[in-house]
Amino acid sequence: MAEGLKTVQEVLGSGITPKILYSTDKNVLPDHEEDITLVGSKVLERMSGLKTPNKILGVFEIPKESALPTNGWVIALDGVKDPGNMGTIIRLCDWFGIAHIVCSGDTVDCYNPKVVQATMGSIGRVHIHYTDLKSFVGHFPHDSFGAVLDGAPIQDITFPKNGVLVLGSESHGISTEVKDTLHHTISIRQYGSSSTESLNVAMASAILLHELRRSQ
Amino acid sequence: MAEGLKTVQEVLGSGITPKILYSTDKNVLPDHEEDITLVGSKVLERMSGLKTPNKILGVFEIPKESALPTNGWVIALDGVKDPGNMGTIIRLCDWFGIAHIVCSGDTVDCYNPKVVQATMGSIGRVHIHYTDLKSFVGHFPHDSFGAVLDGAPIQDITFPKNGVLVLGSESHGISTEVKDTLHHTISIRQYGSSSTESLNVAMASAILLHELRRSQ
Repeated sequence: MAEGLKTVQEVLGSGITPKILYSTDKNVLPDHEEDITLVGSKVLERMSGLKTPNKILGVFEIPKESALPTNGWVIALDGVKDPGNMGTIIRLCDWFGIAHIVCSGDTVDCYNPKVVQATMGSIGRVHIHYTDLKSFVGHFPHDSFGAVLDGAPIQDITFPKNGVLVLGSESHGISTEVKDTLHHTISIRQYGSSSTESLNVAMASAILLHELRRSQ
Repeated sequence: MAEGLKTVQEVLGSGITPKILYSTDKNVLPDHEEDITLVGSKVLERMSGLKTPNKILGVFEIPKESALPTNGWVIALDGVKDPGNMGTIIRLCDWFGIAHIVCSGDTVDCYNPKVVQATMGSIGRVHIHYTDLKSFVGHFPHDSFGAVLDGAPIQDITFPKNGVLVLGSESHGISTEVKDTLHHTISIRQYGSSSTESLNVAMASAILLHELRRSQ
């Protein structure tokens, strides 16, 4: 389910098939006029997960999962639970040209409406997989990197052309079984003398993806 | 107003004076037992801005604004409206050792409870000022940098020891009057061939602050 004109347009533009589009205005999407079911604003409000519903809400087919990636850069998420963080990471992958995200089974569902909303439409352009992460990372044919609190400073690393970068859960980090399969552990340097415990996983992803692309 | 044990502890730890602490449990903060007013969970729920209220809610004195900074690195926010973004930026400044944030009058109030919550307690460790941003940036005695979509790539820049970095609003970027005072405009490179319009201001801040500290 995607809400709002911009998100619905982006999801449509990425080629995901709409099942039904509900709107209070038949002319909101001229190219999809025949797909739109007109509803009153009270009905749209009841369907919406947002406090201030937009003019349009679309229900889409969940894309078929493609084959697991074996090349390029892959982001692996190990138990990321927060829909806003997940959505932001998908958007970041889109920005940094990462085509695949591989998630552990206990990572939040990427089709959770809050995730879809936070991606701002990027969800249609990044392939997302759910699988046994230990096995995926352990068998990936290139180097694996994990973001931890006591790893090597990222600015000292020259990232290879292919690899997998594992990000852990907000509260527990990377699970022991996945950590045991990693070739490298890396960290973002803290500069303040403060007691800030850690960056959240979305902020850490922004910095890591920038650094990963920067060094190539 | 700060909610939840961790946030209240962090705010107390940063030396901000509590006016009153409400809790359902007198023993939740052993050092502040006499400051705590015991309330029922229904009362706490009514006071709380959270869906799932925590055990404690504190009302604090707003710290006195210190003098505007003239040295070091300063982050300037021009019309940032989203409380979550503002809170994240405060937390990032704390992590990257940035002591001052200077905001335009139309930037969201940093004492908005949603901002306080998103800072996870960092708000007590970063000085935040509201002033005429054009005048502040124009008179700051070091180089000024602004994050825009078509500036110089950040990885090519060696940042000086002192400076101000201006970040604009989520929808309009940096205002023309502030942009006219800037020495440098800088950008984060996009790697995807996608149509992602821009990174949100909190994600951009994460990358820019990392890069700023990295190059020093």
